[in-house]
Amino acid sequence: MHPELWQIREIVLRALEEDLPFGDITSEILIPANLMAKAYFLAKDNLVLCGQPVAERVFQEVDPEVQIEWFYQEGSEIQPMTKFGYAKGKAISLLKGERVALNFLQHLSGIATKVRRMSSRLGKGKTFLLDTRKTIPGLKVLQKYAVKIGGGENHRFSLSDGILIKDNHIKALGGLPKVLEKLKAIQNMLKIELEVKTLEELDLVLETPNRVDRVLLDNFSPEEIKKALEKVKALRPDLEVEVSGGITEENVELYASLGVPYISSGALTHSVRAVDISFKIEETWE
Amino acid sequence: MHPELWQIREIVLRALEEDLPFGDITSEILIPANLMAKAYFLAKDNLVLCGQPVAERVFQEVDPEVQIEWFYQEGSEIQPMTKFGYAKGKAISLLKGERVALNFLQHLSGIATKVRRMSSRLGKGKTFLLDTRKTIPGLKVLQKYAVKIGGGENHRFSLSDGILIKDNHIKALGGLPKVLEKLKAIQNMLKIELEVKTLEELDLVLETPNRVDRVLLDNFSPEEIKKALEKVKALRPDLEVEVSGGITEENVELYASLGVPYISSGALTHSVRAVDISFKIEETWE
Amino acid sequence: MHPELWQIREIVLRALEEDLPFGDITSEILIPANLMAKAYFLAKDNLVLCGQPVAERVFQEVDPEVQIEWFYQEGSEIQPMTKFGYAKGKAISLLKGERVALNFLQHLSGIATKVRRMSSRLGKGKTFLLDTRKTIPGLKVLQKYAVKIGGGENHRFSLSDGILIKDNHIKALGGLPKVLEKLKAIQNMLKIELEVKTLEELDLVLETPNRVDRVLLDNFSPEEIKKALEKVKALRPDLEVEVSGGITEENVELYASLGVPYISSGALTHSVRAVDISFKIEETWE
Amino acid sequence: MHPELWQIREIVLRALEEDLPFGDITSEILIPANLMAKAYFLAKDNLVLCGQPVAERVFQEVDPEVQIEWFYQEGSEIQPMTKFGYAKGKAISLLKGERVALNFLQHLSGIATKVRRMSSRLGKGKTFLLDTRKTIPGLKVLQKYAVKIGGGENHRFSLSDGILIKDNHIKALGGLPKVLEKLKAIQNMLKIELEVKTLEELDLVLETPNRVDRVLLDNFSPEEIKKALEKVKALRPDLEVEVSGGITEENVELYASLGVPYISSGALTHSVRAVDISFKIEETWE
Amino acid sequence: MHPELWQIREIVLRALEEDLPFGDITSEILIPANLMAKAYFLAKDNLVLCGQPVAERVFQEVDPEVQIEWFYQEGSEIQPMTKFGYAKGKAISLLKGERVALNFLQHLSGIATKVRRMSSRLGKGKTFLLDTRKTIPGLKVLQKYAVKIGGGENHRFSLSDGILIKDNHIKALGGLPKVLEKLKAIQNMLKIELEVKTLEELDLVLETPNRVDRVLLDNFSPEEIKKALEKVKALRPDLEVEVSGGITEENVELYASLGVPYISSGALTHSVRAVDISFKIEETWE
Amino acid sequence: MHPELWQIREIVLRALEEDLPFGDITSEILIPANLMAKAYFLAKDNLVLCGQPVAERVFQEVDPEVQIEWFYQEGSEIQPMTKFGYAKGKAISLLKGERVALNFLQHLSGIATKVRRMSSRLGKGKTFLLDTRKTIPGLKVLQKYAVKIGGGENHRFSLSDGILIKDNHIKALGGLPKVLEKLKAIQNMLKIELEVKTLEELDLVLETPNRVDRVLLDNFSPEEIKKALEKVKALRPDLEVEVSGGITEENVELYASLGVPYISSGALTHSVRAVDISFKIEETWE
Repeated sequence: MHPELWQIREIVLRALEEDLPFGDITSEILIPANLMAKAYFLAKDNLVLCGQPVAERVFQEVDPEVQIEWFYQEGSEIQPMTKFGYAKGKAISLLKGERVALNFLQHLSGIATKVRRMSSRLGKGKTFLLDTRKTIPGLKVLQKYAVKIGGGENHRFSLSDGILIKDNHIKALGGLPKVLEKLKAIQNMLKIELEVKTLEELDLVLETPNRVDRVLLDNFSPEEIKKALEKVKALRPDLEVEVSGGITEENVELYASLGVPYISSGALTHSVRAVDISFKIEETWE
Repeated sequence: MHPELWQIREIVLRALEEDLPFGDITSEILIPANLMAKAYFLAKDNLVLCGQPVAERVFQEVDPEVQIEWFYQEGSEIQPMTKFGYAKGKAISLLKGERVALNFLQHLSGIATKVRRMSSRLGKGKTFLLDTRKTIPGLKVLQKYAVKIGGGENHRFSLSDGILIKDNHIKALGGLPKVLEKLKAIQNMLKIELEVKTLEELDLVLETPNRVDRVLLDNFSPEEIKKALEKVKALRPDLEVEVSGGITEENVELYASLGVPYISSGALTHSVRAVDISFKIEETWE
Repeated sequence: MHPELWQIREIVLRALEEDLPFGDITSEILIPANLMAKAYFLAKDNLVLCGQPVAERVFQEVDPEVQIEWFYQEGSEIQPMTKFGYAKGKAISLLKGERVALNFLQHLSGIATKVRRMSSRLGKGKTFLLDTRKTIPGLKVLQKYAVKIGGGENHRFSLSDGILIKDNHIKALGGLPKVLEKLKAIQNMLKIELEVKTLEELDLVLETPNRVDRVLLDNFSPEEIKKALEKVKALRPDLEVEVSGGITEENVELYASLGVPYISSGALTHSVRAVDISFKIEETWE
Repeated sequence: MHPELWQIREIVLRALEEDLPFGDITSEILIPANLMAKAYFLAKDNLVLCGQPVAERVFQEVDPEVQIEWFYQEGSEIQPMTKFGYAKGKAISLLKGERVALNFLQHLSGIATKVRRMSSRLGKGKTFLLDTRKTIPGLKVLQKYAVKIGGGENHRFSLSDGILIKDNHIKALGGLPKVLEKLKAIQNMLKIELEVKTLEELDLVLETPNRVDRVLLDNFSPEEIKKALEKVKALRPDLEVEVSGGITEENVELYASLGVPYISSGALTHSVRAVDISFKIEETWE
Repeated sequence: MHPELWQIREIVLRALEEDLPFGDITSEILIPANLMAKAYFLAKDNLVLCGQPVAERVFQEVDPEVQIEWFYQEGSEIQPMTKFGYAKGKAISLLKGERVALNFLQHLSGIATKVRRMSSRLGKGKTFLLDTRKTIPGLKVLQKYAVKIGGGENHRFSLSDGILIKDNHIKALGGLPKVLEKLKAIQNMLKIELEVKTLEELDLVLETPNRVDRVLLDNFSPEEIKKALEKVKALRPDLEVEVSGGITEENVELYASLGVPYISSGALTHSVRAVDISFKIEETWE
Repeated sequence: MHPELWQIREIVLRALEEDLPFGDITSEILIPANLMAKAYFLAKDNLVLCGQPVAERVFQEVDPEVQIEWFYQEGSEIQPMTKFGYAKGKAISLLKGERVALNFLQHLSGIATKVRRMSSRLGKGKTFLLDTRKTIPGLKVLQKYAVKIGGGENHRFSLSDGILIKDNHIKALGGLPKVLEKLKAIQNMLKIELEVKTLEELDLVLETPNRVDRVLLDNFSPEEIKKALEKVKALRPDLEVEVSGGITEENVELYASLGVPYISSGALTHSVRAVDISFKIEETWE
């Protein structure tokens, strides 16, 4: 998904309000009000660039006269020590927006970079890397967007647009058989996904008539996944299979090689390492 | 700092709105409206617990009748596989709030845990571990709070409450000597911090009369830091020294052992690894 | 769906702000500040009651001490001239909230009443009456809730939680064959619905391999619907069929009798006739 | 009244947020991002066009580059099957805004159309058709605007800008004589309107010295209205007379023919039938 | 008017957000978290107390457990050095709310005190002291409320609830005769007020048939006012007369003695002198 | 400080919403919709002009086509009866924005004017005139800006960006010695200010080792201030001294002449006399 303009605007304003409740004390003391400057965005890590419309909005909110130009487009892979764009305008406006713009760029590019690295190890079109609802509160639309930019796919966005039956639902209903029974009557335009924790639970799903469209193998070992895929192929070849739990950059290729069509990972959004990006004033004039 | 009630409320509402625009489809289909349940919070990592008032607020917004009890207080160190609290109420209300509450708890405890690990390696009262403005947009007050819970200290909160002169200011003003000149006239209730990138820049600060209260040694090697501390001790013993750049859990002890009074790290808040926490329904009744 | 507490609160506050920017001039002039009163809600039409949590919220926002009691529960069928509940508290508070509470109750009960009348003419569990996205801006969650209370089902809530391919998509893509081609590659947890306007278009859908889960017959005559259902039964019995366009209270039974499983109607929410409800003070005291 | 820019903006944003929490899934899957399109607004009913500034704002919020042109101006009477304007821009932007724009246009034109039909049956300048506070919560300024566009007049907007003494006030104060007594002392820049339910109550108003400027005859039959008007003419010729209750398109002419100067109707805004308007993509290019 | 609960809540929250973006640094450093305290409100001027519900709300937002008790009720006249209430709760909560609560109390009591002093010099029920739209942006409902508490009356609240024709309207329409001509056709539930600047303009109003209900004599001298009142009495005894411009505490009695029924003053709300109120902690415990 | 764009926008919108909930009744009745006009801002007092960006924003929100030109820049000293700018656009737009724009200009220029008068009596660079947190709720950023425009300096903005230890802190901690003891351990980038009420308290501060950076002499007589300055000079010459309490335009020069470096006054913002400014339409056209 691509965030709507008003969503970007609202998130950016919130970030600026947080950082500028009463102006930029340092710059107001030091920097002449009419000093102009040009500053470059500089990648200091290998990164997949993500967050351009957000960074642009930051500077537009601070000062509509700041101009931004990008040398690479959103989603590009950038080498370390590459200048990938600049902002030009009043020095004080650049200084006010710098940190907030970088906070967004570093976080979103951090997500896109990791997703790109992981998804590039998957067979194109054979295995999809999915995000989850384990997002940073308040940033969901941006994080899901960064996943897409990185080359992943979005799982459901919220509790309102997907049916995913997890351990707590099963526990609350009194066990998997009761859930499967209940599923028969459901009519809805959403597919139904069910989480299983063991091969035995999977057997139950495969043996019971029900309306499950996708099964989520939670924390299965590669060995178990292999067996699970065989069972599904034999008994319900149309059943989609998703794997989750403990997937890392290191082992994702192994999982994909088993023929898993969907791999989901909460860490893509809940444990993001920011990439390093600088913003350097290079010229000033009046 | 401790976030104000209205700040928690606003952040929590935003997170819930993001996750429940049109209800919890899965639970509304499966779970009887009057089914009651009790679910436990379960630590699956070693962690420092942080986020209790936020998690409480999540469930209160969903359903004021949900009751929460904690077995450990905020800031406690929790062992893996420890139940540290429970929520009790309508099953559907627990399911609605589960993910959002966990997203907060996992992120904030992730910060507190890392800060605790790092700060516990510092000489108590000799070296302070500080956060920065490199925060996740929209979560600044909560992240800064988690740093405090972890045992760190808060650096400035925003551009409005601290004077920190960085490379871009120096560049914009035409070099360090001009900045130092300008500093003489400043009168303000905020102390002045100045970032230097080399020992030469530090020399200049030490040699020029000015009003700098703290110097930030940016990306100095341990060797350079040692020299810097000696110079400061000799020439301006009242000048506070802060070190930043490349500090990790592994090397923080080394830096502290040099006698650095302030160590700041953006990674504490910009690159957070969520700790693993589950929320398990264990009983239900009607 | 059931609206969340914060959604009701926000909609109610907006309505009150609209109606009380500077107080209730009439009541402030006439009514003694400490006069207490009890007022009854009186149905003046045959109606299905809907909106209780909204009406309660109205009075709670005006004055938390107003007490409300209902003699019938949400969704009940009420006869004309039946008192179905009362509010008790300061007379001035009752007068302030009266009109806004009634505006909600009359609108939402209007929806529920019409949906109940229509859905009661459908074979239980055989034909579902669905709403659409043709809602009154700003009231979507309440209107969709009223449809459920009335006995209907909710179609997708927004553009974000359902795939419905309509004439404009087909036109933009250059015709139905191109759309069907493109559908093959889609992988998603949402089922796919496609609108067709003629039997010929339906034939094309049935003949082309694709991933359509439901077909929406737009403005088909009963005769055409019959033929369509036969074709579907013969060629793709798993394909769901939805009918839309020109469905009214008068003819809904006819459509249902054809064996149509899903009937959707925009008029349920875009052209609502408010039911008549009064609010009558019957006692006062000090 | 004409709604202010910020009022339109706020209502439009709320409607878009409701419909696009996570993007337009269908269009993002199907429509090429750079496909351009032109789509026409097509009247499918006889209608009085209302809502142009609102529809414009919808598309501007979605994408500031969408261009709109109208072939008829606000308030025009449009024949069925008439194209009355178009929107031009990215196909995906047109698809995102389509439904929300139509929801506004259909509702507001629905109001304007009905008001025009009714008011055109009244003697120009002799009888005024008025709206009430029985509006759809959250849309009051737009609904009141549509009434004006249709040719009606606005009664008071809220409880804060008009004094209207109704049955509940009279009941609370202990009867009409006590109210009339109390009215003597009121000094205010608002005229005073009083609702009466019988000719006897009207007699009391006419016989008692008081400060009532307008009398509202609630649910009087045509016969009673005739008598009422005679009494007023005889005893207080300056007293304005308003009639309310059970006024429809069919009988409004009869009421007007009695010489009633003000007719008010809640149904104008609480029971709106949307007019039918389509939005059709006719051309696309890249 | 009395402000609604949600209006107080919104204004209070805004004030607290302004004053506590990142907590109370001083108190967090110094005050033990569990120290309890009791603090008294102390009048240091002669004042009319106004703002109790606002001050209560301030502390409730900071900490719902703070208890407040008042020794005098809203609107009371308080002598200097009188304790008129106290707040009891966590010391840190009292310190957080202190300044914001006082800012409201001092401002609103400042208005009420001045209004009381001025209105007490007017013949009870003969001359009314009115406020204007010259209010402090964002505080209008509270300021208008303070005027009422002081004993004054509210003129119109906004541009939406009163017709006041001023010099700019007259200039725009091309002179007073054209305005008076236009007024004949107006039908509205609002009375019409017209500002005149000279006796000649007043003559024109009195001589021309029109629908003016009140005339505002702007900046007339006492001598001119006398003449104006005589003219009105002779020619249009029902015309209400309001006087504005240069009214002060010192001369208001003179104006009233002329028999002017309405005196309005912008200074009541645009130039408020805060009264002096202290908040003193007297006891602490743990 | 200079308020950020979004802060101005939010404050302006709030003010307009307050004044135009349902349009400008008077102008909509009287003024032709397409009448154009030019109106001048006219100073009627001696004043220091402040609020230009706010007034501009008012008209831009009402109607983006209104043009404004200023003959004097922000902070200029304007003579009475000087036209200092104009607004040009639709007459109805000028009339809608007039009062709100003037309310801002008169209040902010009122502050700037008073601050200019007072600060011009101080030795340039020797004595600074400071504001306080005694501001009008909701207008803090604008009031602090006006103080700067007037030539004053801003004290802390909020409880979050300055440490000021006042009587209530001292009382809560059990006396000044305990406070001074506690201060030793504080490490923070904020300087510490301490309020003393007597020369004895000052002695205590001077005699006890502590970390106080500035002392606030509260309500000291000129004689006491003199003694205090001597003591400070003798014992802690680096300690900054601020004086507060009872400072007026009349006596500020006396205080400055004593050599006080910082004078703060709550009245600058809590008791503002609005300056008189008119807005006069001079031309109209169509």
